[in-house]
Amino acid sequence: MQKIGKSERLIFITSTLVQNPMKLFSLTFFCDKLSCAKSTLSEDIDLISQIFEQTGQGRLETVSGAAGGVYYIPTMKKEDEIEFLNFLKNELQNPERIVSGGFVYINDIVFNPEVIKKAARIFVRLFLEKEIDYIATVEAKGIALASYVAQYFNKPLVVARNSSKFTEGSTVNISYISGTTGKIETMTMAKKAIKKGARVLFIDDFMRGGGTVRGMKDLLSEFESSLVGVGVLIATKDKKSVDVDYKSLLVLEELNAENKKITFSINHQVIS
Amino acid sequence: MQKIGKSERLIFITSTLVQNPMKLFSLTFFCDKLSCAKSTLSEDIDLISQIFEQTGQGRLETVSGAAGGVYYIPTMKKEDEIEFLNFLKNELQNPERIVSGGFVYINDIVFNPEVIKKAARIFVRLFLEKEIDYIATVEAKGIALASYVAQYFNKPLVVARNSSKFTEGSTVNISYISGTTGKIETMTMAKKAIKKGARVLFIDDFMRGGGTVRGMKDLLSEFESSLVGVGVLIATKDKKSVDVDYKSLLVLEELNAENKKITFSINHQVIS
Repeated sequence: MQKIGKSERLIFITSTLVQNPMKLFSLTFFCDKLSCAKSTLSEDIDLISQIFEQTGQGRLETVSGAAGGVYYIPTMKKEDEIEFLNFLKNELQNPERIVSGGFVYINDIVFNPEVIKKAARIFVRLFLEKEIDYIATVEAKGIALASYVAQYFNKPLVVARNSSKFTEGSTVNISYISGTTGKIETMTMAKKAIKKGARVLFIDDFMRGGGTVRGMKDLLSEFESSLVGVGVLIATKDKKSVDVDYKSLLVLEELNAENKKITFSINHQVIS
Repeated sequence: MQKIGKSERLIFITSTLVQNPMKLFSLTFFCDKLSCAKSTLSEDIDLISQIFEQTGQGRLETVSGAAGGVYYIPTMKKEDEIEFLNFLKNELQNPERIVSGGFVYINDIVFNPEVIKKAARIFVRLFLEKEIDYIATVEAKGIALASYVAQYFNKPLVVARNSSKFTEGSTVNISYISGTTGKIETMTMAKKAIKKGARVLFIDDFMRGGGTVRGMKDLLSEFESSLVGVGVLIATKDKKSVDVDYKSLLVLEELNAENKKITFSINHQVIS
């Protein structure tokens, strides 16, 4: 940059932090790039932090000490979360989403960047304290959502497959009973996918009885790793036999294919 | 916001644009939010645009007229693209990636947010002029990459499945010969997934003979929609019988399982 004044610094710092969620940048990095003193930089960061909090665009966290710096946490204002969840609820309650067999068509939702970006921000807030090493999901409908959560946590995404793929080398396989199909399914993951002792957050689009979650937990135990949280977009009201901290954003209250009636509620636990 | 000076405006505008790639914001939107005159705002936007170009953080495009405004295009500097492609090439050339059967393990790469974010930015530059309505991919390994491309283009992602899922309502199915497996495979997409007359960009992780691309093209023709471009991370040197504009970032030059040798090259067409 040619002449670097306050304006130039603010633009560069804002853009760098926002484009790299959860990535720690040392103050030295910015001082070198922007040829400024640390005290000047600290003032800039305070100002950016204030504006973010006021406008609900996430927040900045500063870490002091030699290994310290600043990073961006992508969250939303509570009122924006509620507005988003209401939008999602109304969008899903469209009776045309009922497909034969009594299922709900949600493909457009789970692959819509605008929707899943916001859902991912809520999961960031919900699981921020969990010290997560990996985000995991099961193919295929949860992958896009999980990849945003992974981006926002700045952690790798691992995807369990429904059957062993020959392009993945040796794999670990487990069987589980899917609540959606009622059948025994296989979940498989490459041996190289996860390091020992990892803490994993499982993200998925839909949760019925929790069979998939139990499958994932078993699979992770084969990697000597643990499931520390579960975030799903929608859960049914079925009893979940799951002993992990799980959060669903919405609850499917009623699906009546005959009367063409489908009702969701916001899970108030996640916004209170 | 309490007092809104130039600093506050720059932070808010930068963050809003960067967090919403390709989304057009009217000048009126910012003027209202920030209580400022359009002339002031235009100066702010010019300054942000300059800093972005200088630091390689993408660029701003302004649209004049009543329906006009400004939006952010997430691209990289050419030298950053080259640095990234060299990093990717070296990462992939690790002989430990060779798995039995003569395949390459790339799961960690295709689901690593840091990697696919940058690849997606290159695809934005490559296909910016194509007036794309949808991003399409085939489950499962390309989904995360495709979802970033979709985010950066601000367009919906559609995912073709390997078999009909009963939760998707009526589907359109076609058969094609996969170059990877050499077998006849099925590709299926929900009837609701794509509107008539759409222009679609296909994104995938790996391309051999182009069988999947031809499959996607056939599938899209059932929706009276057209495939206007294909972007893949890696292509082999096999002859591609594909009549669509396709770009691969890297080329697999040699894979010799016996000698544990694996070589990639950067596709210089995409960076020249």
